[in-house]
Amino acid sequence: MFPKNAWYVACTPDEIAEKPLGRKICNESIVFYRGHEGRVAAVEDFCPHRGAPLSLGFVQDGKLVCGYHGLVMECDGKTASMPNQRVQGFPSIRSFPVEERYGFIWVWPGDPAKADPALIHHLEWAENPEWAYGGGLYHIACDYRLMVDNLMDLTHETYVHASSIGQKEIDEAPVNTRVDGEKVITSRFMDGVMAPPFWRAALRGNGLADDVPVDRWQICRFTPPSHVLIEVGVAHAGKGGYEASPEHKASSIVVDFITPETDTSIWYFWGMARNFKPEDQELTETIRVGQGKIFAEDLEMLEQQQRNLLAYPERNLLKLNIDAGGVQSRRIIDRIIAAESESDSTLIARSAS
Amino acid sequence: MFPKNAWYVACTPDEIAEKPLGRKICNESIVFYRGHEGRVAAVEDFCPHRGAPLSLGFVQDGKLVCGYHGLVMECDGKTASMPNQRVQGFPSIRSFPVEERYGFIWVWPGDPAKADPALIHHLEWAENPEWAYGGGLYHIACDYRLMVDNLMDLTHETYVHASSIGQKEIDEAPVNTRVDGEKVITSRFMDGVMAPPFWRAALRGNGLADDVPVDRWQICRFTPPSHVLIEVGVAHAGKGGYEASPEHKASSIVVDFITPETDTSIWYFWGMARNFKPEDQELTETIRVGQGKIFAEDLEMLEQQQRNLLAYPERNLLKLNIDAGGVQSRRIIDRIIAAESESDSTLIARSAS
Amino acid sequence: MFPKNAWYVACTPDEIAEKPLGRKICNESIVFYRGHEGRVAAVEDFCPHRGAPLSLGFVQDGKLVCGYHGLVMECDGKTASMPNQRVQGFPSIRSFPVEERYGFIWVWPGDPAKADPALIHHLEWAENPEWAYGGGLYHIACDYRLMVDNLMDLTHETYVHASSIGQKEIDEAPVNTRVDGEKVITSRFMDGVMAPPFWRAALRGNGLADDVPVDRWQICRFTPPSHVLIEVGVAHAGKGGYEASPEHKASSIVVDFITPETDTSIWYFWGMARNFKPEDQELTETIRVGQGKIFAEDLEMLEQQQRNLLAYPERNLLKLNIDAGGVQSRRIIDRIIAAESESDSTLIARSAS
Repeated sequence: MFPKNAWYVACTPDEIAEKPLGRKICNESIVFYRGHEGRVAAVEDFCPHRGAPLSLGFVQDGKLVCGYHGLVMECDGKTASMPNQRVQGFPSIRSFPVEERYGFIWVWPGDPAKADPALIHHLEWAENPEWAYGGGLYHIACDYRLMVDNLMDLTHETYVHASSIGQKEIDEAPVNTRVDGEKVITSRFMDGVMAPPFWRAALRGNGLADDVPVDRWQICRFTPPSHVLIEVGVAHAGKGGYEASPEHKASSIVVDFITPETDTSIWYFWGMARNFKPEDQELTETIRVGQGKIFAEDLEMLEQQQRNLLAYPERNLLKLNIDAGGVQSRRIIDRIIAAESESDSTLIARSAS
Repeated sequence: MFPKNAWYVACTPDEIAEKPLGRKICNESIVFYRGHEGRVAAVEDFCPHRGAPLSLGFVQDGKLVCGYHGLVMECDGKTASMPNQRVQGFPSIRSFPVEERYGFIWVWPGDPAKADPALIHHLEWAENPEWAYGGGLYHIACDYRLMVDNLMDLTHETYVHASSIGQKEIDEAPVNTRVDGEKVITSRFMDGVMAPPFWRAALRGNGLADDVPVDRWQICRFTPPSHVLIEVGVAHAGKGGYEASPEHKASSIVVDFITPETDTSIWYFWGMARNFKPEDQELTETIRVGQGKIFAEDLEMLEQQQRNLLAYPERNLLKLNIDAGGVQSRRIIDRIIAAESESDSTLIARSAS
Repeated sequence: MFPKNAWYVACTPDEIAEKPLGRKICNESIVFYRGHEGRVAAVEDFCPHRGAPLSLGFVQDGKLVCGYHGLVMECDGKTASMPNQRVQGFPSIRSFPVEERYGFIWVWPGDPAKADPALIHHLEWAENPEWAYGGGLYHIACDYRLMVDNLMDLTHETYVHASSIGQKEIDEAPVNTRVDGEKVITSRFMDGVMAPPFWRAALRGNGLADDVPVDRWQICRFTPPSHVLIEVGVAHAGKGGYEASPEHKASSIVVDFITPETDTSIWYFWGMARNFKPEDQELTETIRVGQGKIFAEDLEMLEQQQRNLLAYPERNLLKLNIDAGGVQSRRIIDRIIAAESESDSTLIARSAS
């Protein structure tokens, strides 16, 4: 159960640099590749000739060629040609709206007629030279909503990430959650605390003392279908916190694009955007490796939580104040899914009458 | 199908020395840990907050802390506290009666009201300084009753363990099986035979000649739910066999605690208790390694047998005289399961009326 | 769905040289071994005593001994003996007609009464000293008919095997398919082309120039249940092609015995028979290694194709002219399966009346 009429991150450009990429997204088997003039394309990963996976093929003259018997596929799902064959009557396969933007490939697994590129989540930092970005991809065997819960309640940092970004004060600081249309914002401010190891390193990396009290903030922003962007940072205490001027703080945006693969597995694109020392590629890599280790700590927890929930489907979980971010996000997701389902029913009713 | 109102071996103390242990026993997911004053505790491996596995958490001040969001669990399954939360209304999870005794952690997966520690299988040798014990644990994908069959008919030693403890005379010696209440005893005596390699080594280890005829015995004792303890040994021929005085024999007790994980998998705790040279830890280790190799020979046989039985559920297996030990043990198990089921039905009928 | 009354390749002699071999064929679990006077035998891999796999046992005095409790099995599925037991009343297990011929062990998984060894596919080259053979075995998770399709349409060489035996001219040459009783023959002739790498090496290996145009041929012959033998070769252009005399050509027979394991997996015995330099064992090995690499290129394609077909069972695949070889072969297979099914029904009707 996931919204289908939405832009999801499907992959990153490096994943389709050498050859087509087969990837299941929202239960659809899709092949992604660079077609005409390097433009990204996406069609079903199923050759209409004999059902071979097109992702084992190659691109020639901007067209995807099946690696089994040479059927040439257009990016619209129609067969362009095949050696010694007339192809007019060949059945089409589905093509998927796909866009390359902000350093990601975005796919729309639902109704193509509704796929407006303007709906792609705007990422201001991605096109701004004062920012740098580094990130990675994890495959996790859990419902995408468990990851939304995880990211909309950073209380877990104290426990799951105790040695890097966790600290006792997260637990103790009140959390504030509000809903703004289809957005959910959960924020937490901790004033006058000592920074945990990850942030002490960031302060030093920014040329700031790391052994003095700081004001720390976390502002988690959920937007449908399942993106969570989190403003995080520390400023030397009393300099204005979140609002402090750049010379007093270290801050960044944690980027989380959660793309359902199936009902119980996800492609998790994680990363960090920062607006200090953007030209320092070594720093980008250091942060990426560090973040990768921290985020890997969630994997086992989420996969075992998923298995527990499948084993006890009748148990009602608690919805505490700290869970409000996830709970509100799920309500929005549920509303969208219900609306899509209703819209589908209307369409079916119309076409049946 | 297994008795639930029974003490099973769940783990050994070393398995919970560093951190909590998650283990499924009789289809129940359970976390074992050391709580207040080091006392062992066992609750469901399911946090009432969001379903995370408590076994990924840690123990603090004698209480189990969930490693996801810090819920603090009491050993009785009630939530003790959680940062910034009132926990009175939190649903409880199951706790399981658990005891540490004889170097094992024992768990009672059934009705806690019936869990009398006095019912734990008495192991005389475990508390006697004249005895030493060494053992290990195997996970095997088979019904626990296939392992009971295996151990209650040592004919298989001739074939599965031909190079260590097997010998042709096992086949040829008559086997005697008798039932004593809920116990089954199967015994076999082989007089005037040459000892196989394992026992020749044991004779030498005991300072006895290994190239003379011996009287050999095997006395297998089944007790519910699925424990099999086997007295085994050899004595120089004509010195009284099983009854021979210590200076003429080498003997020990093979210890087998078979704990169902699911209907088709087990935790198999195997070991050997001996009453010669109990202080010789090197000998304990040598025997343990040797026994581990011998007992590993059964794994593939049991797992493939299980697969065969699942593939042909309608086939009736033979019940020969050599199978009597397993057949009688299964009758006792069946009676116990039937009694538990009847008792459950009575309870349900009562609560429904 | 596969013909059961047919001879399939079960294994090669080296696979039963040391000990019995357990292998599932056409959904039957079978143990193959050398019995009396080294003659190959095949019975169900299921001991009538306790369901243990007989393939974990050993052969003694020409009889298969169960490795669990020593039951001695005859090659006809009747128990010969068991230590200290009367075995007359023991239930029999199935035995399977089995023959060793042409360097392969052949098994008949259907009605033994119909198993005429004369029906084994005749392999002229296998008993002719002017020929040499080398081959191997792959386990592939696909319906056996997908492999028949694969081999009866060599168009795929251009794509799957582009760097070894593929060449663009295969696509362009017309393909001819004809049915001759229960045989299907698909042929393709390419005149005046440059040989691809594999064949250039073969020309050199045969002492022929490799940089001149050649006439190339592929003649694929399907015979039930699922054997495909392919005559392949190249001759210096204008010397008569397929009919050229030996000093002008390099040719061989690609051997493919496709044995269903289950409905979606196969044992694929592949190899090559050649009638040049038959005494050169180093060349046999070189060809075998090279062919093994080429044929391994099909594995991922076939397995992913199978997964695609299982995911979209309702999709109709195309049947183009290039697919005629597979389509006609499947028709013959379908007819045989239908006839077997009808024959079974008649038998059931008769025995019921």
